[in-house]
Amino acid sequence: MSNAALIAATLIAIDWGTTNRRGYLLGKGGEILDRREDDLGIAAAGAAGFGATFGTFTAPWREAADIALPVLMSGMIGSRQGWVEAPYALCPARAEDIAAQIMPLPGIDSTWIVPGICLNGDRRDVMRGEEVQIFGALDLASLTSATLCLPGTHSKWARVEDGRLVDFATAMTGEVYQVMRTHSILGALMEGNAGHESDAFRRGLDAAAAAGGLLHHLFSVRADGLFGVTRADEQASYLSGLLIGHELRDLGGTFRATDEPVLLVGAAGLTRIYEEALDHLALPFRTIEGHAATVRGLFAVWAANPLARLAG
Amino acid sequence: MSNAALIAATLIAIDWGTTNRRGYLLGKGGEILDRREDDLGIAAAGAAGFGATFGTFTAPWREAADIALPVLMSGMIGSRQGWVEAPYALCPARAEDIAAQIMPLPGIDSTWIVPGICLNGDRRDVMRGEEVQIFGALDLASLTSATLCLPGTHSKWARVEDGRLVDFATAMTGEVYQVMRTHSILGALMEGNAGHESDAFRRGLDAAAAAGGLLHHLFSVRADGLFGVTRADEQASYLSGLLIGHELRDLGGTFRATDEPVLLVGAAGLTRIYEEALDHLALPFRTIEGHAATVRGLFAVWAANPLARLAG
Repeated sequence: MSNAALIAATLIAIDWGTTNRRGYLLGKGGEILDRREDDLGIAAAGAAGFGATFGTFTAPWREAADIALPVLMSGMIGSRQGWVEAPYALCPARAEDIAAQIMPLPGIDSTWIVPGICLNGDRRDVMRGEEVQIFGALDLASLTSATLCLPGTHSKWARVEDGRLVDFATAMTGEVYQVMRTHSILGALMEGNAGHESDAFRRGLDAAAAAGGLLHHLFSVRADGLFGVTRADEQASYLSGLLIGHELRDLGGTFRATDEPVLLVGAAGLTRIYEEALDHLALPFRTIEGHAATVRGLFAVWAANPLARLAG
Repeated sequence: MSNAALIAATLIAIDWGTTNRRGYLLGKGGEILDRREDDLGIAAAGAAGFGATFGTFTAPWREAADIALPVLMSGMIGSRQGWVEAPYALCPARAEDIAAQIMPLPGIDSTWIVPGICLNGDRRDVMRGEEVQIFGALDLASLTSATLCLPGTHSKWARVEDGRLVDFATAMTGEVYQVMRTHSILGALMEGNAGHESDAFRRGLDAAAAAGGLLHHLFSVRADGLFGVTRADEQASYLSGLLIGHELRDLGGTFRATDEPVLLVGAAGLTRIYEEALDHLALPFRTIEGHAATVRGLFAVWAANPLARLAG
């Protein structure tokens, strides 16, 4: 990191999740000047003391800079299990609405946490961290309206209209895969883990379209295994395809109003699986790398906040 | 047990499951003359030795009888993990078809295992033990055509036309409840277990009808909990209602061709939950006690077998 980088620096953006944290030193245009990453997610950091680990993580940037560099954080750090709980902003919401509700960290200079977003109407839902990715991904894609899919343990689908997040929904796809793989009778007969470049994965995607519902389709993992239609080493892939197929049909169907491509946002390992699935279902998509979306989103939220203008 | 009972006895029927076994001494009309039950299901009996525990279980009846009383067994005893694997009979099947395929136990006098039934066409599925309950329940209900629901860890739905089992499907309702309750993030926030006489159970049943699919609905357990809509001590009931609601809508819809009542077959503790659910969804039903259906079914299969005529 050069002195020039520190002079150009305008924000420290931190994506602080459950199992690790990623920090970025950002310039006036949101460009990444420096970065650091470790495995002190909220679980490990909580044990070590949030304040102390935060100090160590940001010190190289904050102590070297001439100005009191502001820090903006998103993710599980703002959850009940995190450092300080940042209340949810209400959906519908723009980046500006979130920006206006960033929460200062008591006792820590110029440091804020981005609130999550909640739905609390006929239907209730929550996200924390994905809101930043959503606005960042739109920015990177130069879009103001889109349907977004953020795959994961708890996948998120979201609809943004004219820069306003108007609706979203969570699907427990990744977690259901994990508990069925690890703890159900289906897992007991499986060998190995899921791969998405396989016939079994695609057969799972197709099976999701049949009658009978997911609770019935799950049993086909076992029944097809008994009859040798799906080998033991194919069953994890089939199960993965089945669950992703259900998610895409149920939530893709609900959230895609038009034929526009789905904005797929996530880490490459995960988006590749969903790309395969979307391709197989002939759903158009465009992929935005997840970490880039987070960085861009944190910068956008910061830029939309009046404090940024004071600081800048 | 009197001498008269032994003189009237015509069959020993055994329902030998995973965790326990139930034996019945049946008379010429299928009436129960005597019964015994223990917890030597196939898991425990396998360790003790099937032959020895079978001998102990049947000796009081077989040794006291004048004739070599035949024994007919159903359930997991005929599975790969059981004593001897009894191959599946192919669906569609009548009681007579199953009767013709009962499998003699090598080395054990006059003792047979009822085969399970499989579907192996466009769709594959299996049952083992439920086939006997299905034919028994129809007999007890004096019906030759019906849609049946046998709730459980792996619920079965079946369609019988003119005495012929023509189609069936398994839903992993009970097992998905169990793994989500025990191993998912949903379970971590729950207190207590499911009760069906509650608003939360009925709200779960209703939630199953919404858009978004089961993977999304599962997350509502958590989101509704966060907003206090479902208390921690109500969440297990809500989850139970949600899963049963999906099963009833998805498979009830597929299997009920007419407005005739669903024949609900199972142990009282389980059928009461499904009765509540069917009532709430305004689906007509009629309940047949599961053990009675098994006994009746084993007798019916025996009576339909040519060996019964030789023995009788």
